Amino acid sequence: MEFIINSENFNEAISEVSKAVSTKTPLQILTGIKVTASSDCLTLTGSNSDIIIEKSIPLMKDGVKIIEIVHEGSVVIPAKFLSEIVKKLPGKIHLKVNDNHLITIQSNEIVTSLNGLNSQEYPRIPKINKNYDLKIHGNELTEIIKQTVFAASKSEMKPVLTGVHMSFSKDKLTCVATNSHRLAMRERMIQSNIQCSIVVPSTSLNELLKLTEFELSEIKLFITENYIVFQSDSTTLYSRLIEGVYPNTSGLIPTDVKTTITLNTKQFLKGIDRACLFASEWRNNNVNLSIIEGSKLKISSNSSEVGKIEEIQTLKEITGQDELYISLDGSFLKDALKVIREEEIKISFSGSMRPILIEPVGNPTYLQLISPVRSY
Amino acid sequence: MEFIINSENFNEAISEVSKAVSTKTPLQILTGIKVTASSDCLTLTGSNSDIIIEKSIPLMKDGVKIIEIVHEGSVVIPAKFLSEIVKKLPGKIHLKVNDNHLITIQSNEIVTSLNGLNSQEYPRIPKINKNYDLKIHGNELTEIIKQTVFAASKSEMKPVLTGVHMSFSKDKLTCVATNSHRLAMRERMIQSNIQCSIVVPSTSLNELLKLTEFELSEIKLFITENYIVFQSDSTTLYSRLIEGVYPNTSGLIPTDVKTTITLNTKQFLKGIDRACLFASEWRNNNVNLSIIEGSKLKISSNSSEVGKIEEIQTLKEITGQDELYISLDGSFLKDALKVIREEEIKISFSGSMRPILIEPVGNPTYLQLISPVRSY
Repeated sequence: MEFIINSENFNEAISEVSKAVSTKTPLQILTGIKVTASSDCLTLTGSNSDIIIEKSIPLMKDGVKIIEIVHEGSVVIPAKFLSEIVKKLPGKIHLKVNDNHLITIQSNEIVTSLNGLNSQEYPRIPKINKNYDLKIHGNELTEIIKQTVFAASKSEMKPVLTGVHMSFSKDKLTCVATNSHRLAMRERMIQSNIQCSIVVPSTSLNELLKLTEFELSEIKLFITENYIVFQSDSTTLYSRLIEGVYPNTSGLIPTDVKTTITLNTKQFLKGIDRACLFASEWRNNNVNLSIIEGSKLKISSNSSEVGKIEEIQTLKEITGQDELYISLDGSFLKDALKVIREEEIKISFSGSMRPILIEPVGNPTYLQLISPVRSY
Repeated sequence: MEFIINSENFNEAISEVSKAVSTKTPLQILTGIKVTASSDCLTLTGSNSDIIIEKSIPLMKDGVKIIEIVHEGSVVIPAKFLSEIVKKLPGKIHLKVNDNHLITIQSNEIVTSLNGLNSQEYPRIPKINKNYDLKIHGNELTEIIKQTVFAASKSEMKPVLTGVHMSFSKDKLTCVATNSHRLAMRERMIQSNIQCSIVVPSTSLNELLKLTEFELSEIKLFITENYIVFQSDSTTLYSRLIEGVYPNTSGLIPTDVKTTITLNTKQFLKGIDRACLFASEWRNNNVNLSIIEGSKLKISSNSSEVGKIEEIQTLKEITGQDELYISLDGSFLKDALKVIREEEIKISFSGSMRPILIEPVGNPTYLQLISPVRSY
């Protein structure tokens, strides 16, 4: 294999696929990036046990030739060194591999040699059909993911809860994530060629959010027995699925609401953020909410050792009972409010030991639940 | 004590003095910031066992009143909470202390209470004379420090080497730092009212470099028996001195130079930086330099497991013997080159087991030495 490439384009592709490469893997071959030179493009692949990222660089970009393939072929190059070297090399990079997988990388008067690995030992990429199952714009996909993935469980006790549950029906995609103490559910109208339910690891979805190219492109989705595949023009992310039955969450949404308040999202987030300064001294980041004077919300938190904070916010609207006292995990509230784009939110309370329901005003496709904590 | 202050000015001062506050100290009083309201200014003090930073905020700034002192007095406030709360509070901040050192911080409808500490328990600030010993502009002082402090020892084995040796004579300040393997020496013409030699901890000097205000102001220096004091208009940094006799370093500068080369500083730094990618696999970051073809410099490094790098750089000038092979610690070379402002440097070699001498071309006030390492 031998090719010449513009260092900037090479660097960009290496940094994208490096996101899938773990330095901690016991499989030496997976610490490398597979580089394949074919007649029409250069392909880079990085992988760990959960995800695979594949990036193709075309020979021409904006009418300018950026790659010259001298000999086709492939090799696996240690990811850490490849990425660090290419960053520090100026101009054009000439990469060549000999029969013993010894790689020479040259730029002007700078010559680097690296020991590569046989690309035959690299794991096979799962096969996907040519026909996609669903098409969605990247910025919509990333919004759906951002609004749910944070609520998934961090604990491996119930593996199925560490993922986001995605249900595809003919005209609707529903995403749900929960860690048993909070839940986020987002729906979206789609045109889908499949009807199925899968659980995608939240670690994979968080990696997807880091792929800069994905936010700007149309994304094709493919679902196989063990994988979900997200594909833009030049980047493909494969994620394994989590096996197991996802719990039914439809019955959790409270129906016997006692009080509903409407208030400004950002102002409430700032108040919760301040209250969290003291709440962090508690085991559950306790922040207390209560209605005072029938029309105002008091946010408070205290830590007997350090001090306390209290603030009063004006409500836009209040319906139902005007008595309320509830303690919540402040960090859960912060996470919930950060991903709401709408200016105002509606919060429904069903009692001090029942989950609260948070909905953006004017958007019926998104809801969140947070269970209260006991305050002593 | 009671005062009202603009949150922005308070925040800025808190962040400056917080640099001296350690959260790890066993003395609870030192985890706080001492706040003193007097008739003409508000003074904040932060301290650890090595340094004290004192910042005065005047009542008026640019003709605008920024502080209103209601009652004079002082209190010690937990630094971590004070800093985090003030960052998150908008507009004007009203701070009040009662007789039990309970602090109330209020901003609009947000009320915070914090348990403070008795300011009588706060350590006394060392007394300084009214007359300064030396005056120097902040950007000159910070340059002198940056060019020497990195060469000090990180090991506490010889405490005196963890500091920078500052010698004041009537018309010259000489700063030297060394860790026995490298040395940096910088001189500067000054007008000094004292003649003495002191050793200042490099940790204190690194903190001084972080005080943004210092780079832009005239700095007055005061030297007492145990302290050096740096003072700008509103900020004062006190640093304890290191006791002990600093070794005589004047005899270390090589006199029997065999080869001298002149080359571009930045280009050389980039080459060393690349070579360090492989050098970091070695115990001593070995980077090899050799003269080839009588007029070129070869920079190389190799790690048998990963690979190797080699590059050729053109020399501006070479005098003396044109045979040379030497191994150096690449990270020492990088540190040395990063603080040289001049476009070209001169390197003098006295043999492969003798220290190299690095001098900026056209600047006789600065020199560095680096000892070679054995290469096997």
